[in-house]
Amino acid sequence: MSKSILATGFLFVFGAGLSMNALAQAKPDVIVKQRQAVMTLQGKYFGPLVAVAQGKAPYNAAAVQRNAGFLDNLSRMAWDGFDPSTRNEKSRALPAVYDNNAKFKEYTSRLENETSTLVTLSRGGDEAAVKAQIGAVGKVCGACHDDFRSK
Amino acid sequence: MSKSILATGFLFVFGAGLSMNALAQAKPDVIVKQRQAVMTLQGKYFGPLVAVAQGKAPYNAAAVQRNAGFLDNLSRMAWDGFDPSTRNEKSRALPAVYDNNAKFKEYTSRLENETSTLVTLSRGGDEAAVKAQIGAVGKVCGACHDDFRSK
Repeated sequence: MSKSILATGFLFVFGAGLSMNALAQAKPDVIVKQRQAVMTLQGKYFGPLVAVAQGKAPYNAAAVQRNAGFLDNLSRMAWDGFDPSTRNEKSRALPAVYDNNAKFKEYTSRLENETSTLVTLSRGGDEAAVKAQIGAVGKVCGACHDDFRSK
Repeated sequence: MSKSILATGFLFVFGAGLSMNALAQAKPDVIVKQRQAVMTLQGKYFGPLVAVAQGKAPYNAAAVQRNAGFLDNLSRMAWDGFDPSTRNEKSRALPAVYDNNAKFKEYTSRLENETSTLVTLSRGGDEAAVKAQIGAVGKVCGACHDDFRSK
């Protein structure tokens, strides 16, 4: 594909906006929108896992693997959105995110580790272990929300 | 982890809401919010790839692989959000999504295939091939937006 066809393609798709934005630091309101989008999708994929863990939905191994995989990817997407530039944007993030950032980062690492473990377990056959691990993921979600998100 | 601890953990995290919602069909406005969240994040991760393809940002192999992997996951997350129940919700999706659903689904498969190829290429060493493939992904985005999204 020639460079000019490539350039035309991108213009066709996104106008001139996207490629410019890709180079500049995203604006604080955009960054907040992006990190909230991650949380929205974490809810979409974690909800059905919780239902499985609670025995309220049947255990469908393929669906559990798929949701766990998506959740694991999503668990890595939000953190660069808690940029200091967003501190004064409207959101439920508490100032502690920035004032106690070491603890916040500890939770983010813990979540990444727990979802990674969930992916591994979801590929095995131990349903009880998967359900317990869904609980472990939920515990980190809750602990972080408790300390770093307004009620 | 005992069942009661598990249940307590989920209540702690989400109140009574999430587990209930996980069982019910999500409401149309929630479904639209979720699919729009996917598009928001596709923009977050595709933008820097476009900049690389256009030579406006340096080629960082690790960053390209990471963004391609996220994009590939995201390219599978939006489609169940174009549920017929959302037809009358406020969004830029055109009625053609539902009236010409076979063509819409053809685009969704094409995007999944193109992002999957991008992931594979991003793990190799052929930068030119990766850049061309970023263009191929952008072409599907644009073609689908052209046919199925209001201007």
